[in-house]
Amino acid sequence: MPQFLDTSDADFEARFSALLSMKREDAPEVDDIVAGIIADVRTRGDEAVIELTEKFDRLQLTPSTLAFSAEEIEAAITAVPEDERKALELAADRIRAYHARQRPDDARWTDPDGAELGWRWSAVEAAGLYVPGGLASYPSSVLMNAIPAQVAGVKRLVICAPTPDGKANPLVLLAAKLSGVDTIYRIGGAQAVAAMAYGTGTITPVDKITGPGNAFVAAAKRRVFGKVGIDMIAGPSEILVIADRDNDPDWVALDLLSQAEHDEVAQSILVTDDAAFGQAVAEAVEKRLETLERRHIAGPSWRDYGAVITTRDLTEAAELSNRVAPEHLELCVADTEGLLDKITHAGAIFLGQWTPEAIGDYIGGPNHVLPTARSARFSSGLSVLDFMKRSTLARMTPAALRAIGPAAETLAISESLEAHGLSVRARLDRLNQE
Amino acid sequence: MPQFLDTSDADFEARFSALLSMKREDAPEVDDIVAGIIADVRTRGDEAVIELTEKFDRLQLTPSTLAFSAEEIEAAITAVPEDERKALELAADRIRAYHARQRPDDARWTDPDGAELGWRWSAVEAAGLYVPGGLASYPSSVLMNAIPAQVAGVKRLVICAPTPDGKANPLVLLAAKLSGVDTIYRIGGAQAVAAMAYGTGTITPVDKITGPGNAFVAAAKRRVFGKVGIDMIAGPSEILVIADRDNDPDWVALDLLSQAEHDEVAQSILVTDDAAFGQAVAEAVEKRLETLERRHIAGPSWRDYGAVITTRDLTEAAELSNRVAPEHLELCVADTEGLLDKITHAGAIFLGQWTPEAIGDYIGGPNHVLPTARSARFSSGLSVLDFMKRSTLARMTPAALRAIGPAAETLAISESLEAHGLSVRARLDRLNQE
Repeated sequence: MPQFLDTSDADFEARFSALLSMKREDAPEVDDIVAGIIADVRTRGDEAVIELTEKFDRLQLTPSTLAFSAEEIEAAITAVPEDERKALELAADRIRAYHARQRPDDARWTDPDGAELGWRWSAVEAAGLYVPGGLASYPSSVLMNAIPAQVAGVKRLVICAPTPDGKANPLVLLAAKLSGVDTIYRIGGAQAVAAMAYGTGTITPVDKITGPGNAFVAAAKRRVFGKVGIDMIAGPSEILVIADRDNDPDWVALDLLSQAEHDEVAQSILVTDDAAFGQAVAEAVEKRLETLERRHIAGPSWRDYGAVITTRDLTEAAELSNRVAPEHLELCVADTEGLLDKITHAGAIFLGQWTPEAIGDYIGGPNHVLPTARSARFSSGLSVLDFMKRSTLARMTPAALRAIGPAAETLAISESLEAHGLSVRARLDRLNQE
Repeated sequence: MPQFLDTSDADFEARFSALLSMKREDAPEVDDIVAGIIADVRTRGDEAVIELTEKFDRLQLTPSTLAFSAEEIEAAITAVPEDERKALELAADRIRAYHARQRPDDARWTDPDGAELGWRWSAVEAAGLYVPGGLASYPSSVLMNAIPAQVAGVKRLVICAPTPDGKANPLVLLAAKLSGVDTIYRIGGAQAVAAMAYGTGTITPVDKITGPGNAFVAAAKRRVFGKVGIDMIAGPSEILVIADRDNDPDWVALDLLSQAEHDEVAQSILVTDDAAFGQAVAEAVEKRLETLERRHIAGPSWRDYGAVITTRDLTEAAELSNRVAPEHLELCVADTEGLLDKITHAGAIFLGQWTPEAIGDYIGGPNHVLPTARSARFSSGLSVLDFMKRSTLARMTPAALRAIGPAAETLAISESLEAHGLSVRARLDRLNQE
């Protein structure tokens, strides 16, 4: 059974705070190991990557087999069943259409002082996408990471996807093809991150690395941050559902379980203004857990980290949700727009009972790479902007410099930066001579 | 003398690569110390912050004097000379006008399948700005960090600014007032970053921390990243000037020196298609260095890290600049727009000889917090977006779910995520019954 909380209980605040600060990730101490791996890859390049792949993935590679060949990719893709291929194509099309709207506008204007100002966006030149191997090798994640990069106009897009014992997921290769990936390396772990950040004899370094991964990958991304850009350090998945009594408890139960089945440390929270409905959902969850294939994962997640919270009203539900800042938020209420107005922090919001969160994982269009662990307070899901950067533009005319230059000089002097002031003064003096 | 390179020299590529990979920052090993300070502040809160401030800043504080009082701020501001106050106000107005244009638009649309999609931006609730003490306590940096946050709609904005021996810069306090800062704490170092990230008895934690700082501050920001958002890990300043012969060598020399005077490890590079002009600029730099107040800083920077590069033409100059991805880029050429089209990576671009980079440091309008150390390849200067985050929105109608739900189910099954598939299937079954 999950925790049951009620805002009218005397100990609610204490219990809710404990829920908020619950440590779900028991991050192993891998930082020293990762530092060693990165140093090794920087020194020995391909040789280190190949040795580490043999050690961790039991796979023997050479520099020329680090990447999948075009023939291997084609052969694997041919084996993908028709219905899966079509579903993946529909997903790619919808994700592309959504992200195409995120392309930012350039701007250029002349202000009242005659200064011409603006900015210009441009794409990151090369991006690397990490795709975890084994259980969590999800073709949907390939689309969600690669398509924003493609839409941004990234020229070179590579994937690192470990293939333990040489086993590759054909759908991952198809997803890569659908989203314009140039090269797929069958390497993983901290060594893959290091190779993408620093390059090896075979692997050309990239400018930005995105994608989920285990503790080693996360530690490696944190370490190479600065040398390259990274997306975020993702934690275990979360969902918060705000639902009133006019919902099917089984639907809400399945939505909660669709996060719980990801990971034993995933967190699913129901917030409802009707205690009886909350009880009904909890019962529906238990019933589904009897037969769910991944009940050995979803069960512990729900029992250890799940919660059913009863509130006085939906406004209070929104307030609690904002304190959680959930990665995924479902609003299963009659007035979704009214409730939405009260939501300040959430990665992705699903409106109404016909929008299960799983739609967003695959095919809705918005990105499924989202801020976890309350980081929706300050960050956003992956987007086209993550693969672009902005140069600001400024042009002074002589008139503009005359108008605002003296103030720049005054401030430069006040900060004891003489050359700054002189670079303005020399030009002003010329104007005064004319 | 700086390095002189010429693209027609046989060893150019080797020397340019060496210039690119020149290690300018000798980051001291402060990580363990910083980890200890953060742990101490998390455990002992105000007590730890007060002890560390006494130790590092020789300043005795109590919980009630951690922050400047309104009276202290007013008294300090009253002492600011009229011309400095006016210059700072003009800067604040211009920076605000520029950043106001960066406010992003929300979006909402219905796609051909009937799915309602979109996104909504919202402000980070609380932001903390680090302002270094001592020499580098710049009021301009307060404006450049705080105004984007204010424009974004951040509700609570705090500053941590160490005041070694109790000395505060009145202009910093005025800049804070002009940009809507709520509270100014006179603390600094890793302890200030820890206090803003985790909170203490007196200091309420924030969601995002921005601002420059020394190695301790940088290491602390890297460590608290994830718990809160951070802007970037800034390195020493850089400028690259592309100039043809039709420029005043002294103006270009002063622009180069206005970076060099920041830091002994700042880097100033001139790229020109005219070797004689390059020589003339180098001579002008030497002449200015004879009298410049900060010649003990600018001189070593120019000699150790400066470079004058002669290219065959301006296209080649643009290509080299793109490999540098400079923080600041001046285009001092006749056809600035033509050259701009060839630039792919730069933090801030200054167009034409009447636009010294110093204008951008103070008063142009664009932000002066910019990506250093070649990170303009993948990141942008500080902006309003850094203080906002985006929630994606999705609403399925029954018709939309019928259209795209089956594909989501197929993909869920292919990824062995049964509950994901069932959450869609349960709804589709209901629709099929109707």
